[in-house]
Amino acid sequence: MKKRDLLTSGDLGSQELDNLLDLAARMKGRHPGSLLAGKTLALLFFDRSLRTRVSFEVAMVQLGGHCIVISPEREMYDLEPTEQAVMDGRAEEHVKDAARTLSRYVDFLGIRQVAKSGPWERDRRDLLLRAYAQHASVPVINLESASEHPCQALADVLTMRENLQRLRGRKLVLAWANHPESRSPGASHSVLTLAATLGMDVTIAHPLGFELDEAVVQTARQRAGDSGGKVQIVNDLDAAMQGADVVYSRSWGCLKHWGDAEREAMLKRALQAWRIDRELMARTKDALFMHPLPVRRNVAVTDEVLDGPRSVVYDQAANRVHVQKALLAWLGQ
Amino acid sequence: MKKRDLLTSGDLGSQELDNLLDLAARMKGRHPGSLLAGKTLALLFFDRSLRTRVSFEVAMVQLGGHCIVISPEREMYDLEPTEQAVMDGRAEEHVKDAARTLSRYVDFLGIRQVAKSGPWERDRRDLLLRAYAQHASVPVINLESASEHPCQALADVLTMRENLQRLRGRKLVLAWANHPESRSPGASHSVLTLAATLGMDVTIAHPLGFELDEAVVQTARQRAGDSGGKVQIVNDLDAAMQGADVVYSRSWGCLKHWGDAEREAMLKRALQAWRIDRELMARTKDALFMHPLPVRRNVAVTDEVLDGPRSVVYDQAANRVHVQKALLAWLGQ
Amino acid sequence: MKKRDLLTSGDLGSQELDNLLDLAARMKGRHPGSLLAGKTLALLFFDRSLRTRVSFEVAMVQLGGHCIVISPEREMYDLEPTEQAVMDGRAEEHVKDAARTLSRYVDFLGIRQVAKSGPWERDRRDLLLRAYAQHASVPVINLESASEHPCQALADVLTMRENLQRLRGRKLVLAWANHPESRSPGASHSVLTLAATLGMDVTIAHPLGFELDEAVVQTARQRAGDSGGKVQIVNDLDAAMQGADVVYSRSWGCLKHWGDAEREAMLKRALQAWRIDRELMARTKDALFMHPLPVRRNVAVTDEVLDGPRSVVYDQAANRVHVQKALLAWLGQ
Repeated sequence: MKKRDLLTSGDLGSQELDNLLDLAARMKGRHPGSLLAGKTLALLFFDRSLRTRVSFEVAMVQLGGHCIVISPEREMYDLEPTEQAVMDGRAEEHVKDAARTLSRYVDFLGIRQVAKSGPWERDRRDLLLRAYAQHASVPVINLESASEHPCQALADVLTMRENLQRLRGRKLVLAWANHPESRSPGASHSVLTLAATLGMDVTIAHPLGFELDEAVVQTARQRAGDSGGKVQIVNDLDAAMQGADVVYSRSWGCLKHWGDAEREAMLKRALQAWRIDRELMARTKDALFMHPLPVRRNVAVTDEVLDGPRSVVYDQAANRVHVQKALLAWLGQ
Repeated sequence: MKKRDLLTSGDLGSQELDNLLDLAARMKGRHPGSLLAGKTLALLFFDRSLRTRVSFEVAMVQLGGHCIVISPEREMYDLEPTEQAVMDGRAEEHVKDAARTLSRYVDFLGIRQVAKSGPWERDRRDLLLRAYAQHASVPVINLESASEHPCQALADVLTMRENLQRLRGRKLVLAWANHPESRSPGASHSVLTLAATLGMDVTIAHPLGFELDEAVVQTARQRAGDSGGKVQIVNDLDAAMQGADVVYSRSWGCLKHWGDAEREAMLKRALQAWRIDRELMARTKDALFMHPLPVRRNVAVTDEVLDGPRSVVYDQAANRVHVQKALLAWLGQ
Repeated sequence: MKKRDLLTSGDLGSQELDNLLDLAARMKGRHPGSLLAGKTLALLFFDRSLRTRVSFEVAMVQLGGHCIVISPEREMYDLEPTEQAVMDGRAEEHVKDAARTLSRYVDFLGIRQVAKSGPWERDRRDLLLRAYAQHASVPVINLESASEHPCQALADVLTMRENLQRLRGRKLVLAWANHPESRSPGASHSVLTLAATLGMDVTIAHPLGFELDEAVVQTARQRAGDSGGKVQIVNDLDAAMQGADVVYSRSWGCLKHWGDAEREAMLKRALQAWRIDRELMARTKDALFMHPLPVRRNVAVTDEVLDGPRSVVYDQAANRVHVQKALLAWLGQ
């Protein structure tokens, strides 16, 4: 049987997604277990992490397994990604040898690398993640890449389901937020895809120039077509909020100028109104407020909304543990 | 029930301290256990560590639990400590969001941060530790701060009790030691408080200009008043040693010039005699020699004393495991 | 009973080596176990690692124990190695105090430090490793030093035994490889010693100027004398390959100029033919291809050979887990 990876949200079919969310719901609170006793998950972090790292360690502990957490840039060797390279430069090891070796040791492999050197056409391909997935013989999990953050999105839709029961037809506003730095669109892409798969009515609201990846939006539209959902894009935050059941706030960078932080910063100077506050929330249908964290308080959203009664941001974080237990159980079958 | 933290030695009442030491004594050698099976303790190290980190990992292993060890400055995001801040600067996440998120993942949270930027009036407040404790809903343990190092002091008094049986009325000399760098008074404050709580006759010996924190000394005097102990301060090391049952050596910085390492170094040039040697130990009542480690050999104490038959410095280190098992069992009730 | 360490391959007698390999073979695939439940192994990495770190963590997990992985240069204190030093410099703790403290916490101690400052006469003594071994009261395991890498060599000879059954009399070519950087001879020394102990017919092939450590070669010759094996040295790679059962490729630095990377790089400019390719392999008796990894593809060996049917490099890596389980079981008796 071919091994399964989770590299993008699109890797999950509609039925698989439903099954995974059901399993996650059943696994909440059921611990300690021994399902993965003696099993190991290596987590490779090329970028910083709080939620992803801790929630995976806790998930493995609850299943009786063990995480091996690695900072490759400090602890491992520089890796060569190119096929047939004559390795007389800086890279000490080929990615294929690292992937094959790790596959002989561990049962699962997770990788976080958000490529930011640009251009987007290159970074969107998540080359390092895909090279590991290609050469590893064990399941590879995307812990956040330039393009996708599927584990976050799984926790997000579980949290929506817990609060709204039925998701089909519910209005989700995916609201671009201002931010002093350039952030990857990964979390936004992933939640967009899953929401569309689940039949939600998704409105993406962003300023001109901050379009999401065209291919991802296209896939989401197809998914919505299959599920009875909708995907539309607007450039007016006020209008978008009308009738929303969920407001999902997140910043993402300008993909046209991806890797050029200065240019993006200039574009964002005039966009300080792209911040969720009480007035905006008042236009919704008493919407849930969501954000994948970390969040820039009073830049992306006011304290009042974030700390208010409709905010479920810590539940999103907590649900990471449970969707990941379900994911590991499923991939490890 | 409100959660309990261990931020300072003063957080422990006299009866609680006795109970904790009794429990630690009972838990010595009793392992492996399953008291904390499936439970996790996150350890956040903003400063270096050997004993604290390894002893907590071993303690959790012996109780069937698991530590998640984090170097926040390399692995997590920069944190904003200020309430209502508009987070458009460097900090990626607010301390309250980190604390609340971690509280959804782990069962205990330990933090080591020794603030050294000065002035003492600011750093003595252990702001980061207290912010975590305020916002976390799980027990927070001080792994050493500018002001306190309660886990070390618990191991210290357990070691004294094992060697001297009765502590009430025993003379403890807390002896300032020279050191090429500025060290926090945390360990000294904590052992002072606990020794006073247990009714010991404490003599603090230090050169003029190296006074401990006034509020801590005041609390210790009150504790001593309640327990039948004593706290006195002298500036003469020779005289202090007379009749001592325990000599506890440790360097601490000049609090008046806290954060100004150069000025402190100048003050210390003439203080090389503040080093424990055989002659000084000969004035005592065959005293135990103690030091929380790491120790500057032949600066704070001679090899002869440190490696001599009355030195219990490795027992102090070993007892960290057992007091911490007791602490986790107690906080986790 | 005196504790046992594994610092060099020569620490293992011929009978002990056989027993250890037999135990490793029996322990393959037998997991999860509880032989080391509640036990801990501290791994101190002064240098980068993939295989050693992950394979030890997996080995401990499979035995029910736990690894504590430490990057001493980032996480611990600077250590003083000199006896009777007056520690008023940079070092915060004496190696003897670190070793004694760790011995009170953990059950095994592993250390990787490859000294490269030169000269070889100093670095070959593996001073830090030996200081830890001297002062620790628990078994110390060499995770690779300037001189030796015994855990790798154990995995290597287990892999040879699995493929060739009988090792006595088999021809092993230990072939120097070109490499853009200076590499330690540790892995080569260790496999040379073990192969000689097992009665193999070893041919060391290297360019003039890249002699291995004389004392190590001398020991290997003695071992070969006892076991019916042979050790010879040639400077012609083509000739060496004739009739080989195993080709073991690995680069090592110029010991005469150890620590002088520039001088070594100059010497290596003309040595690009020291690379294993199909033509060289064709001269052998359908030899196994081995390399301890990481490997510089198309510098040390061509893709074709490395990815070919006789390459067992990933089996070598995988066997690290099993020889280390056997080693821990044996040292922990």
